[in-house]
Amino acid sequence: MTTPIPVYLDCDPGVDDTLALAYLLASPNVELVGIGTVSGNTSAAQAARNTLDLLCLAGAPAIPVAVGAHDHLDHPYAGGAGWVHGDNGVGGVELPRAPGEPDARSAVQLLIDLSHEYEGRLHVLAIGPLTNIAHALAADPTLPARVAEVTAMGGAALAPGNITPAAEANVFNDPRAAAEALAGDWDVTLVPLDATMEHTLSEEQRGMLLADERPFVRTVGEILDHYFDFYVGTYGRRTCALHDPLAAVLAAGAVTPTRAPRVPIVVDVSDGPGRGQTIADLRTQRIGVRDHDGVRTRLVLDVESSIGQHLIDTILAG
Amino acid sequence: MTTPIPVYLDCDPGVDDTLALAYLLASPNVELVGIGTVSGNTSAAQAARNTLDLLCLAGAPAIPVAVGAHDHLDHPYAGGAGWVHGDNGVGGVELPRAPGEPDARSAVQLLIDLSHEYEGRLHVLAIGPLTNIAHALAADPTLPARVAEVTAMGGAALAPGNITPAAEANVFNDPRAAAEALAGDWDVTLVPLDATMEHTLSEEQRGMLLADERPFVRTVGEILDHYFDFYVGTYGRRTCALHDPLAAVLAAGAVTPTRAPRVPIVVDVSDGPGRGQTIADLRTQRIGVRDHDGVRTRLVLDVESSIGQHLIDTILAG
Repeated sequence: MTTPIPVYLDCDPGVDDTLALAYLLASPNVELVGIGTVSGNTSAAQAARNTLDLLCLAGAPAIPVAVGAHDHLDHPYAGGAGWVHGDNGVGGVELPRAPGEPDARSAVQLLIDLSHEYEGRLHVLAIGPLTNIAHALAADPTLPARVAEVTAMGGAALAPGNITPAAEANVFNDPRAAAEALAGDWDVTLVPLDATMEHTLSEEQRGMLLADERPFVRTVGEILDHYFDFYVGTYGRRTCALHDPLAAVLAAGAVTPTRAPRVPIVVDVSDGPGRGQTIADLRTQRIGVRDHDGVRTRLVLDVESSIGQHLIDTILAG
Repeated sequence: MTTPIPVYLDCDPGVDDTLALAYLLASPNVELVGIGTVSGNTSAAQAARNTLDLLCLAGAPAIPVAVGAHDHLDHPYAGGAGWVHGDNGVGGVELPRAPGEPDARSAVQLLIDLSHEYEGRLHVLAIGPLTNIAHALAADPTLPARVAEVTAMGGAALAPGNITPAAEANVFNDPRAAAEALAGDWDVTLVPLDATMEHTLSEEQRGMLLADERPFVRTVGEILDHYFDFYVGTYGRRTCALHDPLAAVLAAGAVTPTRAPRVPIVVDVSDGPGRGQTIADLRTQRIGVRDHDGVRTRLVLDVESSIGQHLIDTILAG
């Protein structure tokens, strides 16, 4: 057996964050050593409450949860995406209130502390806006040297955006933070909509979660209900995209990218119509996009196989 | 037999402009009633010289050729794309100098005059930057009412750009002109890289032009030589994309778009990394992009069949 990868999760649950969290808790490849929250799908504070309640329900109340940035680098938190994730971020499902409270540290401090504790091994998995990550880089420029790898869900290269025609929500919510995180001196795996939109769950797969005897697993299935409604407008049927779960499965090393070039990515931090988009140079894509020298961000455009059933199987076996 | 469509061509030859011109001269569906030039692939003056020389060689010296804008709306002409189109715009091929000179009118005046002469029937085919078209709209706001339709080659929706990672050259060269042309009160068929990059010519097809006995047709084949070299970096073989020719074939009604939604398109006129891109809202593309009410620009994403052989056949039969 290989040693599980120690993972710091930065998140904003969020329905697909919940699914990613359930996967990470169940995956034998991962040891979830700390969680920071950030405003995005919902506020950082609500995200922390949701995370604590989910962890308690899952029987993992000891994982520290630290509240991160409420506002973004250049602008205040705008109120979340209730029409996608429900007003409380977890599809409107009322979770049993856990006794636990957030860690006294900030998410930035928790991440820095973990980078010392797991020096050279810590994997940073960021599935919300990259605000905390940018703050951590500013607070401790030596951080990247202690982090093994960063995996971030965000952006859209050639795929349409989701929050605007050109921009994906995580990056749109804090474009400058994304630019700073991608400019860090570390290896980043960026997981954009180009990849995530190709992975979905079916009603039948959601039913497998609902049929489980464990309250946590059943609750995850219930939380997906509202999210499945939202995606009818995108896919023409009740289903959901697996944005954050794909980043989690990649961080766990359970799926291999088949097309993931290291190419320059410029984040549009302007106030123009392209604000928040991730512009990657894919002009040579027809002859195979080659890695550019010196670029440390790989852009995941495709992975070897659909992750939907792997996700369900892992959660059910967890 | 149907009456040929009277076409005003706005162009910047340009290698693919040359191919489009050869097609338009040969197509029985089209009557080329006037040509304006604009700076883009080469300067407006050089483009006029090339056009006059090509028309004379083709035995059509009577078509008026008017010089249009040298500079763009917000910035001066930047020197063209010699690395793509050759330093003289026609692949470095030295054309026999025609005795004819440009029309005394500006391209804008020629277009306005033709819109009266062919009122309600004139088709505007713009295959360079839209500078002249924007000037014409400003000079005569009643112009759109006399124009049957506009077909413009330009932009990139989900495809990568060509002049920058996000922008296509015609729009990038004058983003504000593109925005103004698309905002005009007329029906526009916009032909972006998403469609044009799917159409190419082979060496064998170029050989058919070279083997023709008419000097004009042979010369078109020669002009393609340099352009075929350029595209090795894009397609991995000697070939070329059929940008302007696809717009010409669409204007002639010789190919039917199979996916061409009328969707809002925002041209990025910022100075950010997305400058010159055409942002179309294609977020519902998986369930079929519907026409939006009140939108008069249709974005050609796909057409029914490859146009390469039709282009060659038409030129050879012309």
